[in-house]
Amino acid sequence: MSEAGIPPRVLEIAEGIRSMKIRGAGKIGRAAAEALKIAAEEYAGPRDLQVFKKYIGRVADILISTRPTAVSLPNAVMFVVSALKNAQDYESARSSIIGSANRFIEESLSAVKKISEMAARRIKENSIVLTHCHSSVAVSTITEAYRQGRVVKVYSTETRPFYQGRITATQLINNGVPVVQIPDSAVRYVMGEVDYVVIGADTVASNGAVVNKIGTSQVALAAKEARVRVYVVAESYKFSPVTLVGELVPIEFRDPTEVVPEDWLKQHPGVKVLNPSFDVTPPEYIDAIVTEIGVIPPQAAILVLMERLGWALEKIKQGVSTFTSIRFEDLLE
Amino acid sequence: MSEAGIPPRVLEIAEGIRSMKIRGAGKIGRAAAEALKIAAEEYAGPRDLQVFKKYIGRVADILISTRPTAVSLPNAVMFVVSALKNAQDYESARSSIIGSANRFIEESLSAVKKISEMAARRIKENSIVLTHCHSSVAVSTITEAYRQGRVVKVYSTETRPFYQGRITATQLINNGVPVVQIPDSAVRYVMGEVDYVVIGADTVASNGAVVNKIGTSQVALAAKEARVRVYVVAESYKFSPVTLVGELVPIEFRDPTEVVPEDWLKQHPGVKVLNPSFDVTPPEYIDAIVTEIGVIPPQAAILVLMERLGWALEKIKQGVSTFTSIRFEDLLE
Amino acid sequence: MSEAGIPPRVLEIAEGIRSMKIRGAGKIGRAAAEALKIAAEEYAGPRDLQVFKKYIGRVADILISTRPTAVSLPNAVMFVVSALKNAQDYESARSSIIGSANRFIEESLSAVKKISEMAARRIKENSIVLTHCHSSVAVSTITEAYRQGRVVKVYSTETRPFYQGRITATQLINNGVPVVQIPDSAVRYVMGEVDYVVIGADTVASNGAVVNKIGTSQVALAAKEARVRVYVVAESYKFSPVTLVGELVPIEFRDPTEVVPEDWLKQHPGVKVLNPSFDVTPPEYIDAIVTEIGVIPPQAAILVLMERLGWALEKIKQGVSTFTSIRFEDLLE
Amino acid sequence: MSEAGIPPRVLEIAEGIRSMKIRGAGKIGRAAAEALKIAAEEYAGPRDLQVFKKYIGRVADILISTRPTAVSLPNAVMFVVSALKNAQDYESARSSIIGSANRFIEESLSAVKKISEMAARRIKENSIVLTHCHSSVAVSTITEAYRQGRVVKVYSTETRPFYQGRITATQLINNGVPVVQIPDSAVRYVMGEVDYVVIGADTVASNGAVVNKIGTSQVALAAKEARVRVYVVAESYKFSPVTLVGELVPIEFRDPTEVVPEDWLKQHPGVKVLNPSFDVTPPEYIDAIVTEIGVIPPQAAILVLMERLGWALEKIKQGVSTFTSIRFEDLLE
Amino acid sequence: MSEAGIPPRVLEIAEGIRSMKIRGAGKIGRAAAEALKIAAEEYAGPRDLQVFKKYIGRVADILISTRPTAVSLPNAVMFVVSALKNAQDYESARSSIIGSANRFIEESLSAVKKISEMAARRIKENSIVLTHCHSSVAVSTITEAYRQGRVVKVYSTETRPFYQGRITATQLINNGVPVVQIPDSAVRYVMGEVDYVVIGADTVASNGAVVNKIGTSQVALAAKEARVRVYVVAESYKFSPVTLVGELVPIEFRDPTEVVPEDWLKQHPGVKVLNPSFDVTPPEYIDAIVTEIGVIPPQAAILVLMERLGWALEKIKQGVSTFTSIRFEDLLE
Amino acid sequence: MSEAGIPPRVLEIAEGIRSMKIRGAGKIGRAAAEALKIAAEEYAGPRDLQVFKKYIGRVADILISTRPTAVSLPNAVMFVVSALKNAQDYESARSSIIGSANRFIEESLSAVKKISEMAARRIKENSIVLTHCHSSVAVSTITEAYRQGRVVKVYSTETRPFYQGRITATQLINNGVPVVQIPDSAVRYVMGEVDYVVIGADTVASNGAVVNKIGTSQVALAAKEARVRVYVVAESYKFSPVTLVGELVPIEFRDPTEVVPEDWLKQHPGVKVLNPSFDVTPPEYIDAIVTEIGVIPPQAAILVLMERLGWALEKIKQGVSTFTSIRFEDLLE
Repeated sequence: MSEAGIPPRVLEIAEGIRSMKIRGAGKIGRAAAEALKIAAEEYAGPRDLQVFKKYIGRVADILISTRPTAVSLPNAVMFVVSALKNAQDYESARSSIIGSANRFIEESLSAVKKISEMAARRIKENSIVLTHCHSSVAVSTITEAYRQGRVVKVYSTETRPFYQGRITATQLINNGVPVVQIPDSAVRYVMGEVDYVVIGADTVASNGAVVNKIGTSQVALAAKEARVRVYVVAESYKFSPVTLVGELVPIEFRDPTEVVPEDWLKQHPGVKVLNPSFDVTPPEYIDAIVTEIGVIPPQAAILVLMERLGWALEKIKQGVSTFTSIRFEDLLE
Repeated sequence: MSEAGIPPRVLEIAEGIRSMKIRGAGKIGRAAAEALKIAAEEYAGPRDLQVFKKYIGRVADILISTRPTAVSLPNAVMFVVSALKNAQDYESARSSIIGSANRFIEESLSAVKKISEMAARRIKENSIVLTHCHSSVAVSTITEAYRQGRVVKVYSTETRPFYQGRITATQLINNGVPVVQIPDSAVRYVMGEVDYVVIGADTVASNGAVVNKIGTSQVALAAKEARVRVYVVAESYKFSPVTLVGELVPIEFRDPTEVVPEDWLKQHPGVKVLNPSFDVTPPEYIDAIVTEIGVIPPQAAILVLMERLGWALEKIKQGVSTFTSIRFEDLLE
Repeated sequence: MSEAGIPPRVLEIAEGIRSMKIRGAGKIGRAAAEALKIAAEEYAGPRDLQVFKKYIGRVADILISTRPTAVSLPNAVMFVVSALKNAQDYESARSSIIGSANRFIEESLSAVKKISEMAARRIKENSIVLTHCHSSVAVSTITEAYRQGRVVKVYSTETRPFYQGRITATQLINNGVPVVQIPDSAVRYVMGEVDYVVIGADTVASNGAVVNKIGTSQVALAAKEARVRVYVVAESYKFSPVTLVGELVPIEFRDPTEVVPEDWLKQHPGVKVLNPSFDVTPPEYIDAIVTEIGVIPPQAAILVLMERLGWALEKIKQGVSTFTSIRFEDLLE
Repeated sequence: MSEAGIPPRVLEIAEGIRSMKIRGAGKIGRAAAEALKIAAEEYAGPRDLQVFKKYIGRVADILISTRPTAVSLPNAVMFVVSALKNAQDYESARSSIIGSANRFIEESLSAVKKISEMAARRIKENSIVLTHCHSSVAVSTITEAYRQGRVVKVYSTETRPFYQGRITATQLINNGVPVVQIPDSAVRYVMGEVDYVVIGADTVASNGAVVNKIGTSQVALAAKEARVRVYVVAESYKFSPVTLVGELVPIEFRDPTEVVPEDWLKQHPGVKVLNPSFDVTPPEYIDAIVTEIGVIPPQAAILVLMERLGWALEKIKQGVSTFTSIRFEDLLE
Repeated sequence: MSEAGIPPRVLEIAEGIRSMKIRGAGKIGRAAAEALKIAAEEYAGPRDLQVFKKYIGRVADILISTRPTAVSLPNAVMFVVSALKNAQDYESARSSIIGSANRFIEESLSAVKKISEMAARRIKENSIVLTHCHSSVAVSTITEAYRQGRVVKVYSTETRPFYQGRITATQLINNGVPVVQIPDSAVRYVMGEVDYVVIGADTVASNGAVVNKIGTSQVALAAKEARVRVYVVAESYKFSPVTLVGELVPIEFRDPTEVVPEDWLKQHPGVKVLNPSFDVTPPEYIDAIVTEIGVIPPQAAILVLMERLGWALEKIKQGVSTFTSIRFEDLLE
Repeated sequence: MSEAGIPPRVLEIAEGIRSMKIRGAGKIGRAAAEALKIAAEEYAGPRDLQVFKKYIGRVADILISTRPTAVSLPNAVMFVVSALKNAQDYESARSSIIGSANRFIEESLSAVKKISEMAARRIKENSIVLTHCHSSVAVSTITEAYRQGRVVKVYSTETRPFYQGRITATQLINNGVPVVQIPDSAVRYVMGEVDYVVIGADTVASNGAVVNKIGTSQVALAAKEARVRVYVVAESYKFSPVTLVGELVPIEFRDPTEVVPEDWLKQHPGVKVLNPSFDVTPPEYIDAIVTEIGVIPPQAAILVLMERLGWALEKIKQGVSTFTSIRFEDLLE
């Protein structure tokens, strides 16, 4: 993709995402929207609709290419670019992009708060909650529920191999929420006491499956076994449009030395290590997904995609191609 | 309990068990049998049946009191002492004790080999096995099955917080068995590939429930969900007689600093840690228990108790008291 | 809320709902629609769109406040008031309200008949049906199916503590349908014989969970265990919009003396009584919900809400507030 | 059966059982044992083994015929009569019967206490227990567990149509145990809070199925669904020997007027009522059966039969006939 | 229905469908669309919208009546005819029909390819797939996945009584895909090895249930038991609109001589034979349905109906009548 | 094994088993017992206990080697030979063998009748039964139950690839029992109507798993899904002693041409066929096993082995070797 004529601030943002200076699903999404907004504002080409669309297409493609597996990135870009679909002329196209980018940013910022409020209502008084790994929106939900007297204790798994559970424990205790750290293998042991499991999501697929930190599906299974409700709290930009055309969410395998010390590994050369980042929780183990759009059963995930990304979804389905190969530049012609 | 008249070597063994110099279910059991044998051999009191029985009762009580929760200890003692039930005179009583102690020791030593042979036969060619924590008999079974071409890969969980899985991985790789170490939370992720779960047991209860390292019940649950067979390999002295009268197997809670570093804990004073050693796997998640006596369904655990500890079992049931309060001294009067 | 300028007949209806002279989900809903229609017809204020909207908002708020937990009440009001969303001027606004109220009333009246016809088709010849508690639409469905030769016997639970099952039995026998009354605890006993469970709903939540008379979830569980299909028959105004933003459907606890006689209670002062009116049946225990809009899986409940209450739903989601705190007066400004 | 030569006190006891003056599984069993003891003590016939055996056979048949479906009755008779199997002469036969009858009576009297002690140990501290219907041994177990600080609250179902739950509630509250009465249909509603279900048994079948008050199987199902442990507490004379040869435990159907008032029934002539007394809980829904012989998995029920009724069991199996047609008179020839 | 004025080529097509010269869901659907297109093109009546609509209604009714149970037939007709809904005049109506028919034909032709591409992506490398009966789109999906290195072996059931599995095996082997034929009863035996089940559908119901060749639901059940994913691949014209109003998909019973030879049947006159063509797989046993519109959970089947047949769906719901009684002639007035 | 000194009639029987002239579990077992009886009767060697035992050991080994996988063969031999265990001299040894062989033959002959009587009692009035493949004892049980008015209809699967279901249908119809033949794939379709599944067993393993005709485990799974009771009817000589030491029951793979015609196979050279004879039904899908010894839960299978083969079992366990390698010749030294 040629970067000619793309404003430097846009390229800076793209670089920030690529180098992971900009991290976290929400931040990445908002940065991409911001970049598109800047691109529209600083556009200096001919005041022609087709030329402008092509330009925006190029910017979109550059942004998306920076981190192809971060689901919030194409979501943000698709959302903003979708605004072009009804544009009749250059002027309206440009202001649509700006308006749409602003809307994405605003809604993204308010999403965590909305989800926390909705999800907290689903928790009855004096409940014990279990959470796995670290999720901002899960911490926010639990804290909100605690403030309303709904939560009295939280079990937080340590979440090997990276111990993200310690971040969760720290944030909860700082918010005043009583928290008990447990090894990941103690989940079923404490489940008899637990009233709700509240977890975040890395990605939600079109059939309602939830991709999240390795171990999540075991937690959900143990909850199901004990008739404990499982709530997934996830902003709508975590819903993956390309799963609609069959794409599997890629599961990253991380370095063995996260699991065993490097020294140990050298001393035991034959031992292999498998260190997957995520697993897939099937929809039947999830009672509800709470997004800023509402409380839905996992099987309605596709509705979230349709509401947020309708036009882009059509484009993808026409192509039946993986998202990464969609070129906005072409689509917008 | 008075220790008057007890041979010093017997007291030394008792002390060895108490101070945990003698460790491991098998070693403890054999040491206790050895101690009873010595006690009989070195008995220097009147050659009177009743006096001898009382003396053996005292020795038995001393031994059992050294580590009340190690299930192999009362099992060994009960097994040996049971030999007294048909003794008609002092001479036969004394030789019964010696013979019975020898038999316990021999059978205990051959049990792991027998179990490995039996259990290996249950594994079909080219299978992938998963094991949790470290169990000598599980390692021995898997190695035997590997030598017969039945096992091609083993998933071994790291087993937080103590990483006993690394011992398992080391022993397996030393035996030439291909082994892949995984975090505990990746069990369900790999389960689709697994053909058998093979695990040891800390204690088997009279209703077939298996008490084993924390996380075992999650592994078994994930196996059940995927129709993967679960075999428990356990010597008969792991079967707990006192569960027959309702005793729950005690679950030890270990130090928080095994889970989070001491420093971290000090910096986060509000965070509690729960660190249970064991959990309970219900019989319906176990396809078979392999003991040196044979391959049984978990619900037949009681038959193992009856075959090994028949007489002592009767005594316990008559008392309907916890084992620790049974005084052999009294029982043998 | 000021009642100034509200037509007396509207206030009378509101009072009728509050005092429970007007009862039953359908009747309440239609009464509220009627009240809004009258309010529009008898409106005597300035012929200004904004003033009229504010006035209708006030009427709506008065109506809803009369019985905040009756789900059909806000549904009717929302449905009628939604008609204002596209009104360009006073005249069209007024006629929209009248037209929309008429439409609600008509559709509500025909809903039971439509549902009965659709649901009856799902029952095969010579079937045995079980129903719990009393539901007009369930009785109507079963009767229709009986007339078509699809039903040959009905098990009707007595439905403690209020014995609503006797009303069901009476209505069915009056319709000629062979009916067998059973205690609530005999449900699993007869389930082996049953082909379908047909039950009504008090409220349907956005994730497809069904709130209905206490015991319903046990019936559904026993049906699931025996692979017996469970059909919920429910008019679309039973679907709760506020569950979309996380509201839990409130479970009323009724008087202990419904369960034990007052005398007995006095003689046994320590004994507590828990007498919940409803329980929650999870969507996975329901094969289909039949509404007048069609036969849907429970997970599509949200589509019913969207089709019936689209605009109001948007308003609610923007507020992420409980419905009872939504003030139509403000929304319509 | 001729009653010639049967001591009057024996016939009185038989009549007491028949007329239900003597009620309850324990009382019936002990009365039958007592009757056999009296029959032996007051025997005035020839001092010949064969004649005496025939006489005892006649007494046994008379006793059993008084209430063919009360499982404790044949159990007591079989147990006592089994003592004859090794009798070499009249004298030993007579004293065997007396001794065996005494042993049955003693063990029966101590059984409830033993079971309560064993079962109470299986309940962890601060637990909430649910029980159904009324069972002396369940009340005794719960009370014992409460005294030990293991139980903090009990949910007791009212148990329609006879409200035996009120007896349970009364006895528990009199013992100081906090108790909450609920309608039978609220079991699943409260199950999320419950830690253990403790119930009695009317009859235990040879494959471990438990026949108990109608509704028990629903309670167990709801417990299983929520991973709540179910303990059945039952004296060994509740285990039915004839189920070993295929006999189904008969389910009594009681009068419709227990379910609906007689007046109502007359006014609704078409309505039928089904009022079964018992249902069958499959073994997979029961975690353990606690008998005075120990804590066993339900699948080991057959061991209890073998331990208690070995000889009689052999006789039954040879005949492969229903117990009621076994004539002891013939068997003892 | 009068055939006066209907072009002969349209009647020929109708006859072709009736006589089953035109077979297969796709071919039937496209033939019907073609017929409507011809009807519009060759229309020779007055250039009046109402007359034209009535004429198209008649053609539609004739087509549908030829094979009332072939779900693709009404789907095609509804899809094409729906184009009339916004027609303002005769000209636009006529060209709408032609355009809509062309669109149906094109999309139908590309559907199999699109589905295969999407569904193949859901299969991981080196997988073993099982399929049942013969489905073009399943064969196409598996072949595509094989070409991408995702499939290494296919189990294909023979599919009694018609052995359609042999067609599947033939096509797969011709495509180079390694295939193993098994009896239908060996499905559970091989399931431990299987990674995915891929099957076609005869009809998809509005609640997500899938009607397909007898045995499909057993395959899906065995897959569920072993946590094996089940994908249904089905073109959108397999989704049945009339199930939305409660119609059950009719299950055809075929001739006994397909199951037992005619001779045998004559020699065993008492033996009955039941030979159902289809069974119903409940949505909870299906992980995803892949249509050309995307990968959806079965519970979203209703969305496919809404997207494809929106207008016709409304008409059907208004009538709440079975589809076969809908007369397009009337609807289009 | 040397055949010197073995009576010709014994060798004839051995040959008859080897050549499969003698077929069927019962017939094989009785033939083997008969052969041992003849061997004892016609023994012409020195009247010395040790020599006689060695001789019998040789005969036993010859018999067992004729068909190593027929479970009734070693069972019969073990049962008969076990009689030697207490023999003090040659005379008693010889008569023990004869007596024991007679007992085996008698009990084997009466077993089917006993099982049918017991199992028939477990079936309630007016029931519909499903059976799979052909089993004499299942046919006998169903016929007995039909005669008692307990069975009104039987579904019999055709049982591909060998159509043994036609034998079942023929025998049932000859006995007057109404029978409906279905394809194997229609089992789940009819299961909703079925009250009991009654099936035979090829082999019962020590953990209660039942090895039977391919497809049995699918039938049992579909029954479990629908809460339909599954009864296995099996003579005690179907219980495999070597499974106690871990032996897997071998699953025979039969010729591909049983599944596809030879011609077809030649025309499709790439297509492989898998044609397993048996599958394994796990104990949790079986409600009871009915043997001539009684009605037991599958988990009590080990008790049957203990009761029938106690001594031989001990020998096997000491060796922990596969049965085929046990040499009776050595064991009896």
